[in-house]
Amino acid sequence: MAAWAKRLAGVRGVLLDISGVLYDSGEGGGTPIDGSVEAVARLKRSQLKVRFCTNESQKSRGELVRLLRRLGFDISEDEVTAPAPAACQILKERGLRPHLLIHDGVRPEFDQIDTSNPNCVVMADAGDDFSYRNMNQAFQLLMELERPVLISLGKGRYYKETSGLMLDVGAYMKALEYACGIEAEVVGKPSPEFFRSALQAMGLEAHQAVMIGDDIVGDVGGAQQCGMRALQVRTGKFRPSDEHHPEVQADGYVDNLAEAVDLLLQHAHE
Amino acid sequence: MAAWAKRLAGVRGVLLDISGVLYDSGEGGGTPIDGSVEAVARLKRSQLKVRFCTNESQKSRGELVRLLRRLGFDISEDEVTAPAPAACQILKERGLRPHLLIHDGVRPEFDQIDTSNPNCVVMADAGDDFSYRNMNQAFQLLMELERPVLISLGKGRYYKETSGLMLDVGAYMKALEYACGIEAEVVGKPSPEFFRSALQAMGLEAHQAVMIGDDIVGDVGGAQQCGMRALQVRTGKFRPSDEHHPEVQADGYVDNLAEAVDLLLQHAHE
Repeated sequence: MAAWAKRLAGVRGVLLDISGVLYDSGEGGGTPIDGSVEAVARLKRSQLKVRFCTNESQKSRGELVRLLRRLGFDISEDEVTAPAPAACQILKERGLRPHLLIHDGVRPEFDQIDTSNPNCVVMADAGDDFSYRNMNQAFQLLMELERPVLISLGKGRYYKETSGLMLDVGAYMKALEYACGIEAEVVGKPSPEFFRSALQAMGLEAHQAVMIGDDIVGDVGGAQQCGMRALQVRTGKFRPSDEHHPEVQADGYVDNLAEAVDLLLQHAHE
Repeated sequence: MAAWAKRLAGVRGVLLDISGVLYDSGEGGGTPIDGSVEAVARLKRSQLKVRFCTNESQKSRGELVRLLRRLGFDISEDEVTAPAPAACQILKERGLRPHLLIHDGVRPEFDQIDTSNPNCVVMADAGDDFSYRNMNQAFQLLMELERPVLISLGKGRYYKETSGLMLDVGAYMKALEYACGIEAEVVGKPSPEFFRSALQAMGLEAHQAVMIGDDIVGDVGGAQQCGMRALQVRTGKFRPSDEHHPEVQADGYVDNLAEAVDLLLQHAHE
């Protein structure tokens, strides 16, 4: 047994990243990661609270949940904390009308948002829609605004598809930040507000929860800065160098979600 | 007369940026900036040495010179310092075989370069070829290299076309730097080596030359850091806020190249 597993004592709830932990996206929707379907089922049968905390911004929650259920996962829409609904709330609160640099898959989340005469840009993982033309359109709009506001759904560097590593929204966010000389507001992990809204939905304090993710900075570092414990799985975008990251050290490293759940079920109630 | 024009005393040579100073690119090739054709002709009839120093990386020097001659400019290929030939020299010296993330227009400059089994990425202003697919291909290659080398032809934030501001290579360079966790090597302005090679081609010392450009950081700041004087024109990508830039102050600001040449011909020989 890993010595660090003692650190799991007292955990009452688990926040699960989705992409790279539950499944790898790719052709035909994607592939579940070995053991993850059963691991989620075991967690749900346990006394631990479970919530899914994702930066997925190519799909609406509805589409994501349908895909995951098709892959065998026990998950429903109201168990998912995702950046698009959080962004919509911010837009409404601040009277912002976005130009949307997003994938068509996530567009339904913005159905109730006024996008006429835009006074900000909201960007998400647009995938192939990150064309030069679309990037330039967002850039020109920001340069015309007296107070340019750029909201980015996450700032991931890359994610893993079954076919290989893929550039994530963070790379394109950096491009617009540099071109416009501005700093984006990030909605999603690793923003503390985002983790706190997930904790609130579970009715837990940070010290009672553990985050499980494949992103050493966005998942592990972000959760730890909120006072949570955090494990990194060696699946998804994990790379061996993550275990020697210059700034972030996970509370533990596990081969996959199945191993994390084994250890949690053994040690959480100690 | 502007008081600062006295600072032009002793100038023996002029380095001219091309895009935004001579012409604005755009539909049908582009449009000369008012007075610039005559201004270049007057400079060439004077005793001042003239060289063109551009970060243009969408076109080969041959294509660029043909376009400018068609617009009426007196310019030949051997008067142009451009980043692609400088990059080719670096590739040869270091035995690098590039994957090319570039526009087809500049491809002829790389005709003599071995691009098999690439061990680095060279990026330039690829325009519409900055597709997600092409960016991702360069990203994946860099992530596979043990020592990833990214060479960028310039690092401009944007440039001006007749239709409006356009994202330049620097924005996409920042995207790849962030995604891969690396720093690019910049060939072109504001790299000191690049300015020095232009000065060497003119046979002048830095203190004898003045740079005229529309980019407060890349042209003006870069030239000043090499010991040259530098003027910013209020054409091309110039924005009023440039005159209050937090880090760079030009030796003088002029409405256009024609005004710069008026002042130079009056004051250079004082």
